[in-house]
Amino acid sequence: MSAYDTDNIFAKILRGEIPNVTVYEDDDTLCFMDIFPRTDGHCLVIPKTPCRNMLDATPEQLAACMTTVNKVANAAKKAFDADGITLFQFNEAAGGQEVFHLHFHIHPRHEGEGIRPPGQQGDMDQIKRNAEAIRAHL
Amino acid sequence: MSAYDTDNIFAKILRGEIPNVTVYEDDDTLCFMDIFPRTDGHCLVIPKTPCRNMLDATPEQLAACMTTVNKVANAAKKAFDADGITLFQFNEAAGGQEVFHLHFHIHPRHEGEGIRPPGQQGDMDQIKRNAEAIRAHL
Repeated sequence: MSAYDTDNIFAKILRGEIPNVTVYEDDDTLCFMDIFPRTDGHCLVIPKTPCRNMLDATPEQLAACMTTVNKVANAAKKAFDADGITLFQFNEAAGGQEVFHLHFHIHPRHEGEGIRPPGQQGDMDQIKRNAEAIRAHL
Repeated sequence: MSAYDTDNIFAKILRGEIPNVTVYEDDDTLCFMDIFPRTDGHCLVIPKTPCRNMLDATPEQLAACMTTVNKVANAAKKAFDADGITLFQFNEAAGGQEVFHLHFHIHPRHEGEGIRPPGQQGDMDQIKRNAEAIRAHL
């Protein structure tokens, strides 16, 4: 496995070099909106400390992320009156990973609605409204 | 969200009422092979204590599961000389959940190979050999 690249886009977000639409933040984790949303309300949870993905993450990084995933997923389920939540976590390119800083994808789901293919940029105003809707339930 | 159903199939596995092909076990978690494998080496990590899914899980249940996911995923990556790992975790039917006891799906992945559709039962002898291959790297 390759070493952690400090120039990955999430490292830049953590350093404040790139803006993000924040949903939630604590000492150990950050949750922000995916700007290529595959479902409405699609957001990401990352640790604030470096690791490439789940394979090299510490138990502490994974525990902190999952505590935040649980919080945000429950808030998102309420915010969008969702019927379920799908959690994706990709490791290495062959596993679906595109940014090489550990992240969990939270997808609010409704009965009969699928997950859109990746790569379609969302409307920023709608993304900001969706973040606000989740925050209102935290 | 519905209450925990003590007759779900994973609760029966935990009580020893239904057999499973065990990969790893500790005080808090069990990892066993999915008999409907969507990739070779597809296995599941569950907590030994009841919770319906990630939404009602405690931080301790989630932390214990992720520590085991990390261990088994690294072993599976070596066992199958995999290029990556895809982790799925489904919550409620609309989120993809079929058995209502929290579980994480570990999928070893190879470049250019997809994830098969759900619902195709695997060959039990091959599944047992795959479990042994993972155990050999734990």
